[in-house]
Amino acid sequence: MISTSDVEQAATRIGGRVRRTPVFTDDGVWFKLEQLQHTGSFKARGAFNRIIAAGELSAAGVVTASGGNAGLAVAYAAREFGVAARVYVPVNAPAVKVAKLRELGAAAELVGEKYADAYDAAVKDAADRGALFCHAYDQPEICAGQGTAGLELLEQTGGLDTILVAVGGGGLLAGIAAAVEGRARVVGVEPRTAPTLNAALAAGEPVPVEVSGVAADSLGASRLGDIAFAVATRTGAGSVLVDDAAIVEARAALWDRYRLALEPGGATAFAALLSGAYRPAPGERVAVLLCGANTDPATLTSPTAAPPAARTPR
Amino acid sequence: MISTSDVEQAATRIGGRVRRTPVFTDDGVWFKLEQLQHTGSFKARGAFNRIIAAGELSAAGVVTASGGNAGLAVAYAAREFGVAARVYVPVNAPAVKVAKLRELGAAAELVGEKYADAYDAAVKDAADRGALFCHAYDQPEICAGQGTAGLELLEQTGGLDTILVAVGGGGLLAGIAAAVEGRARVVGVEPRTAPTLNAALAAGEPVPVEVSGVAADSLGASRLGDIAFAVATRTGAGSVLVDDAAIVEARAALWDRYRLALEPGGATAFAALLSGAYRPAPGERVAVLLCGANTDPATLTSPTAAPPAARTPR
Repeated sequence: MISTSDVEQAATRIGGRVRRTPVFTDDGVWFKLEQLQHTGSFKARGAFNRIIAAGELSAAGVVTASGGNAGLAVAYAAREFGVAARVYVPVNAPAVKVAKLRELGAAAELVGEKYADAYDAAVKDAADRGALFCHAYDQPEICAGQGTAGLELLEQTGGLDTILVAVGGGGLLAGIAAAVEGRARVVGVEPRTAPTLNAALAAGEPVPVEVSGVAADSLGASRLGDIAFAVATRTGAGSVLVDDAAIVEARAALWDRYRLALEPGGATAFAALLSGAYRPAPGERVAVLLCGANTDPATLTSPTAAPPAARTPR
Repeated sequence: MISTSDVEQAATRIGGRVRRTPVFTDDGVWFKLEQLQHTGSFKARGAFNRIIAAGELSAAGVVTASGGNAGLAVAYAAREFGVAARVYVPVNAPAVKVAKLRELGAAAELVGEKYADAYDAAVKDAADRGALFCHAYDQPEICAGQGTAGLELLEQTGGLDTILVAVGGGGLLAGIAAAVEGRARVVGVEPRTAPTLNAALAAGEPVPVEVSGVAADSLGASRLGDIAFAVATRTGAGSVLVDDAAIVEARAALWDRYRLALEPGGATAFAALLSGAYRPAPGERVAVLLCGANTDPATLTSPTAAPPAARTPR
């Protein structure tokens, strides 16, 4: 569980290490351009907070399990502090992602057929070697770090009623909801094909879900994090599902209207608004958190060429 | 010639019609993300100012000559007011640009082999039919409109010493330099292969130059506008030339670092900073005006696949 104060402490801790990403407003909606963050997603915030909060690290450095944005962020943050990073990914991880991790100076460790195998290997590495394990979404420091984007958003907009946030494992949702608790409401938006939050709220606890679809490479966690569930229920976070077609359309619209490049998961929060899955009340002050752009830009103008769902979520 | 007051009047006139594009800062440099403007470039500002300032229009509507950003902006602004727009382009204009103009409701008139032919036809259309002629860069209302981005930039940053601005015909340079006159200095950045400002300053007057290179589709005017020359000399605007390779590198860096998509001309101002062609003094507050993103995003990650120079500048 995390609180506003945890997020405020995170903001102090990572200030100067992460970018204060810009906002802009159009047609009465605020957009936070978090895809401009280091390594192209909000994940750098949590990675820095986790690593700085841990204090002095052993020579074993940091480990994580991720074939996606979390891995890039941990690799980047570790490099900034000159500590070793090992990122565990399944053997079928796309070569381009492995190459990018290595470019950032991380060791990419290819283990197992599934994300769960890579995850287990990362946890074992941390235990055996005394490395700092960075979870992709379910650790207090990770969530609190992501939430710093929410503090900025309130400052930058002068106040909001509702913030639409994409949900995979829920680290971003947890952080933002804690950051703005009592000041704004958060609505989690997720693909109908990867409904971790929706399923957890329905079941009364996080439950495993099948994941697929265009946004699975970034929103493809198979179960909501415990922290996200606790914060979502405490703060009364909303849940909205969107179809893959709405995500593809939102991504195309962000390019067509604003020349903003987003990965499918990064455009998912906007899909709720564009498709009408979320309809603001008259006068409601709404923000959309755009959260990632690790995508092949060639697919921006050919929606049908959107990247296939990765086989290695997170 | 235009003054700060012309730009301030333009800002009042077009307020609510154009987007207040966001700024962000990294590594001590401010960036204004003007590529988020309607139709993907700053040109919408001037188009709105020109059309609104003209007051009631005849049924003949508006005309312009442009195979690029100016044409899109005029078409868009005309559509917003429900007036007819005819955009003259040479017969060899890329079909995709013609299609885009028609999507915006404009009539694309294909005339002649060269831009000058299309230009002459547009001027004749305006004279014969009583339409409002919108120049791509050399009319007071056009320049003053573009300058409104400079007023915003000063407000958004709290003050600057230097603003780097790409130069083609110089409409943007003229507007920004007039907007910030006495408060900040403007440095015009242009491709070494399309040096209209540089050549004009050397000659003591605008002179024809040969144009080519990766940014010629948006910065390919063959002569600096008279207004730009007058404002540049009055305000002491600087001039910096960059190689095509520096433009390609700047464009790639904007994507790699910030996930910002720019056309080559839109990234040219940043090329001056990145290549060291412009070196700020210690403590100098510098802003880069990113100004256009009408580009094939597929070329963002393959610098060698940058679009060829268009044969139809402006």
